Amino acid sequence: MDIKNYISENKERFLEELFGLLRIPSISSLTEHKPDMYKAAEYWKESLLKAGTDKAEVFETEGNPVVYGEKIINPDKPTILVYAHMDVMPVDPIEEWKSEPFEPVIRDGKIWGRGADDDKGQGFMHAKAFEYLVATNQLPCNVKFMIEGEEEIGSPSLGKWCATHKEMLKADIILVSDTSMIASDIPSITTGLRGLSYWQIEVTGPDRDLHSGLFGGAVANPINELCSLMATMIDKEGKIAVPGFYDDVLEVSDIERKKLAQAPFDEAEYKKSLNIKELKGERGFSTIERTGIRPTFDMCGIWGGYTGEGAKTVIPSKAYAKLSCRLVPNQNWEKIARLIKNHLEKIAPNYIKIKVDILHGGQGYVCPIDLPAYQAAEKAYEKVYGKMPVPYRSGGSIPIISTFEEVLGVKSILMGFGLGGDAIHSPNENYPLEQFFNGIETITHFYKYFAENPA
Amino acid sequence: MDIKNYISENKERFLEELFGLLRIPSISSLTEHKPDMYKAAEYWKESLLKAGTDKAEVFETEGNPVVYGEKIINPDKPTILVYAHMDVMPVDPIEEWKSEPFEPVIRDGKIWGRGADDDKGQGFMHAKAFEYLVATNQLPCNVKFMIEGEEEIGSPSLGKWCATHKEMLKADIILVSDTSMIASDIPSITTGLRGLSYWQIEVTGPDRDLHSGLFGGAVANPINELCSLMATMIDKEGKIAVPGFYDDVLEVSDIERKKLAQAPFDEAEYKKSLNIKELKGERGFSTIERTGIRPTFDMCGIWGGYTGEGAKTVIPSKAYAKLSCRLVPNQNWEKIARLIKNHLEKIAPNYIKIKVDILHGGQGYVCPIDLPAYQAAEKAYEKVYGKMPVPYRSGGSIPIISTFEEVLGVKSILMGFGLGGDAIHSPNENYPLEQFFNGIETITHFYKYFAENPA
Repeated sequence: MDIKNYISENKERFLEELFGLLRIPSISSLTEHKPDMYKAAEYWKESLLKAGTDKAEVFETEGNPVVYGEKIINPDKPTILVYAHMDVMPVDPIEEWKSEPFEPVIRDGKIWGRGADDDKGQGFMHAKAFEYLVATNQLPCNVKFMIEGEEEIGSPSLGKWCATHKEMLKADIILVSDTSMIASDIPSITTGLRGLSYWQIEVTGPDRDLHSGLFGGAVANPINELCSLMATMIDKEGKIAVPGFYDDVLEVSDIERKKLAQAPFDEAEYKKSLNIKELKGERGFSTIERTGIRPTFDMCGIWGGYTGEGAKTVIPSKAYAKLSCRLVPNQNWEKIARLIKNHLEKIAPNYIKIKVDILHGGQGYVCPIDLPAYQAAEKAYEKVYGKMPVPYRSGGSIPIISTFEEVLGVKSILMGFGLGGDAIHSPNENYPLEQFFNGIETITHFYKYFAENPA
Repeated sequence: MDIKNYISENKERFLEELFGLLRIPSISSLTEHKPDMYKAAEYWKESLLKAGTDKAEVFETEGNPVVYGEKIINPDKPTILVYAHMDVMPVDPIEEWKSEPFEPVIRDGKIWGRGADDDKGQGFMHAKAFEYLVATNQLPCNVKFMIEGEEEIGSPSLGKWCATHKEMLKADIILVSDTSMIASDIPSITTGLRGLSYWQIEVTGPDRDLHSGLFGGAVANPINELCSLMATMIDKEGKIAVPGFYDDVLEVSDIERKKLAQAPFDEAEYKKSLNIKELKGERGFSTIERTGIRPTFDMCGIWGGYTGEGAKTVIPSKAYAKLSCRLVPNQNWEKIARLIKNHLEKIAPNYIKIKVDILHGGQGYVCPIDLPAYQAAEKAYEKVYGKMPVPYRSGGSIPIISTFEEVLGVKSILMGFGLGGDAIHSPNENYPLEQFFNGIETITHFYKYFAENPA
């Protein structure tokens, strides 16, 4: 039976199985959901065994568990290590969801729910592609699965776990579906990922909340001060105004910039889709460059003082912010994390106290397009989508990908099937059914092409 | 029986009665506490009747109720109108309270609880001073009480209510205890209050939360933009950088500035009490001037994006802030409210949307020190505290005081007994027992001196 028929005959079951996983609220950044990480791990383990692995096991780490499963058909054959993550992002603002984040539904040809794309939907395609190859006796190589539960918080435990299980994880290529394509009719393969540094800062003024009338004018207000500090971080050119920040940024060649400029991009459509009048970014770079090859500084959250209904006149004691930088290949996230921490501590004025905590981070990644596995992926996309995919530098980060290269010495191929409208990390995350089924199909072809020419 | 003995014999009952009022969580800024406003009003009504008014009534207004009570001994005698408020501020951050905000307790010679000072404790002194004068047949003048429930949200309904009850409220002086003294051994009377304007702003970037990797660098982040806007509001001299803001500020004469400089102030002690290394304020003015005769711009609250545990990488759709200015006499709060609103709308860049709501405000107030009622108050303090009180310009605002003058044509005397450490508007609000009892005593003397020389 060919893969199209197999999908067609089993699609209801595939979705039911995926929905079981989507219903588990495995939010890794909230400790109250720790038990859900174990539920998700058990669910993945059972799914792998049902799909045909010889064995599958839930491993403890220093943080959330990792599921590992494998099917070894012949030690002399090449081995694919599939990586996915079972944890998801928080769901707030919850009131903006049109259906419950953890009650997946099909609407308008899409799966709606937290994790529908990132990365339960995309990860689960691999279980189903593998199931088909086993069920129809076509598996051309060995397969290993490694499903982690901390990707959305920067994979703090997986690197160490990989190091202690290096032999078990031996593989020729790592296969990951946790990225997007340019559009459903413009297949693309992500060849670059940005790195990430993430901080939380606490600014303290007076040691208690003060009456803004009795003290206002005489005492520094930590919210005003936090705003003033943050306003200095980006200059008028859109550059991050921290000495040394760009030292390690690789300038991309004019030739590569020309190639990047060929990717289809409609600025009017882009602005319309976000309902904004003007874009804003670093002077001298296009939007695709700003999100692909240039670093960023974004405030992801801010809070302090009175945030309830109506008016309370207060000078608060404290104000907080969560900050992140996306980094480009060759920038070291730990170096940048320290650089920004030191900078903020240095420029903070004497009338406030500042505390800067480095929450997490990860390196960027580049995949060379002459890698045989990359070419196998190209052919697989071409077979399903009818077009050669274009290489694409993503603005997102999967910090663990560069760790895999460091620790396991294995390159990753980022076969993503997400689309720009999937609203990952946002309310109303969704994943088109077409991408889910096409993804399964593409992955089965990749196995075949890769096994024919693994290196 | 003299007042000292009366207090001594009745102090347990006075505190029990006050505690009944303190237990009602009458937070006017939270609509969920609307029923508590009615409970507090009934409690005040009963308290006035028990203290000896001829009548007392709860009046509806467009907002929270007003309690009115009176005792008319002789229409030809002078009339004192006592004003107080029964509403309190919110209690967050609740975790910083050492005892429950609405379970008052006595500890270290102080009453602890929300409203212990502002303004249930101070307001209740008037009920007890009046009770003594009635019980001992010494009441020298007519007395009216007006207790409102919206002072902490800017008294939006009371001005109109006063206008429609002008005849009933006719009085020679308004007596208010809702301010502080410099210290328990340095009695002072507040002769000036700052005005207030208060705004909430909403900054919108993209119309939904975005993945900070996929969009970061290309799209304006509303938190960063909010911070940048706010950073422009105060210049390097500590001046509010809005054209026209200082146009109506009365410059205080050198002579008056010299008098103000005579008030005791220990900068080292002030900084230590707040646990800050440096003060910050408008260049060219002392701390007492910065809080007394100069306007301010403070952010009272800020929020947006991810504020939970750990790291979420997001460019939020929206960011919010609550802003307030303290204003000085002669600045019109509505004019300033519009000025800042227009300014922010004008300077907001094209890549965000800004919405500025004026939440409330009020005018400043000045009480001339040659007013006979002021001199009666001076004598009353002197009798209890053994020293002439000093006139003092407070940085706080009681917007309704200037409204009384406009609508009723009556001046107010601000006989405050609060202390700097009372933590009004903050966690662990408290009120020293000594101030509560001395306040009752001082008020009884004021009645006598005022009745002797009302004008």
